[in-house]
Amino acid sequence: MLSKDELEANNRRFSAAFTGGQLGATPARKLVVLTCMDARIDPLRLLGLRDGDAHILRNAGGRASDDAIRSIVISQQLLGTRHVVVIHHTGCGLFNVTNDELRQNFSGALGAKVAGMDFLPLGPDVTASVCEDVTSLSQHPLLASDTKVHGYVYDVVTGRIIAVG
Amino acid sequence: MLSKDELEANNRRFSAAFTGGQLGATPARKLVVLTCMDARIDPLRLLGLRDGDAHILRNAGGRASDDAIRSIVISQQLLGTRHVVVIHHTGCGLFNVTNDELRQNFSGALGAKVAGMDFLPLGPDVTASVCEDVTSLSQHPLLASDTKVHGYVYDVVTGRIIAVG
Repeated sequence: MLSKDELEANNRRFSAAFTGGQLGATPARKLVVLTCMDARIDPLRLLGLRDGDAHILRNAGGRASDDAIRSIVISQQLLGTRHVVVIHHTGCGLFNVTNDELRQNFSGALGAKVAGMDFLPLGPDVTASVCEDVTSLSQHPLLASDTKVHGYVYDVVTGRIIAVG
Repeated sequence: MLSKDELEANNRRFSAAFTGGQLGATPARKLVVLTCMDARIDPLRLLGLRDGDAHILRNAGGRASDDAIRSIVISQQLLGTRHVVVIHHTGCGLFNVTNDELRQNFSGALGAKVAGMDFLPLGPDVTASVCEDVTSLSQHPLLASDTKVHGYVYDVVTGRIIAVG
């Protein structure tokens, strides 16, 4: 566990050397990247992007959840992005498990509170889960009709993205 | 706009130099960082963290949304994290606007489809919105009772985080 003092000391070193203060809020490349919270993923670097280039959305699995849609609507309407890249990855905790299995697993600690919860698992095929989210975003009535959506699987062992579709 | 070819070429350079393939899925510092999608924010670097240290959750505003809760439950139950850091920031597009104002703003492009949508705006005080989300997470019945939650405001001009509460 990291202490609050350590995080704050780390940030004092970061801010002492900070040079990004002139960046504006508008993503320079009109891009949104939607990917998993996984600790091994650094979305900016794996796509060769720089600070200021893209909005980054992350949740468990990198799913096109209602909250991701809320965020993309804000990104498009307030700051003009038009390209979405969806990245799921190998070795994801949501790979090849079902909602029933996750609820069963979590019920020891959380009891009946997880009954009915949808954990948005990826299913048994990470290529298919990327396709599902790319299709969902491409057809979404709240996204701009000229939105471009591309999907990838990121391999956490090799650092490679593989295009889907 | 960035082309698909450019992103893929960038990733070929990244993967050619990739050395992170041995990292495991478990966040080494048992930490979840919840922050905004803003293009100026690099959560790992501003907290002095390394690849593999933390789960990173990002959405519009850095809000403790239902999807953030889903993700934190998975993070805690599957991979043992117990510390959550919430970071909102200065200059956020969700600062000092109301849901009604956002719906009105977006209705030109999206019409009645945004009626009733909650965009989770920050309100007129970014310190208060951090407090709200820290309190919501600290008291949440789906989070482990020994979860530590800390809140910060990140200043996009100076690179400094200011502790809240």
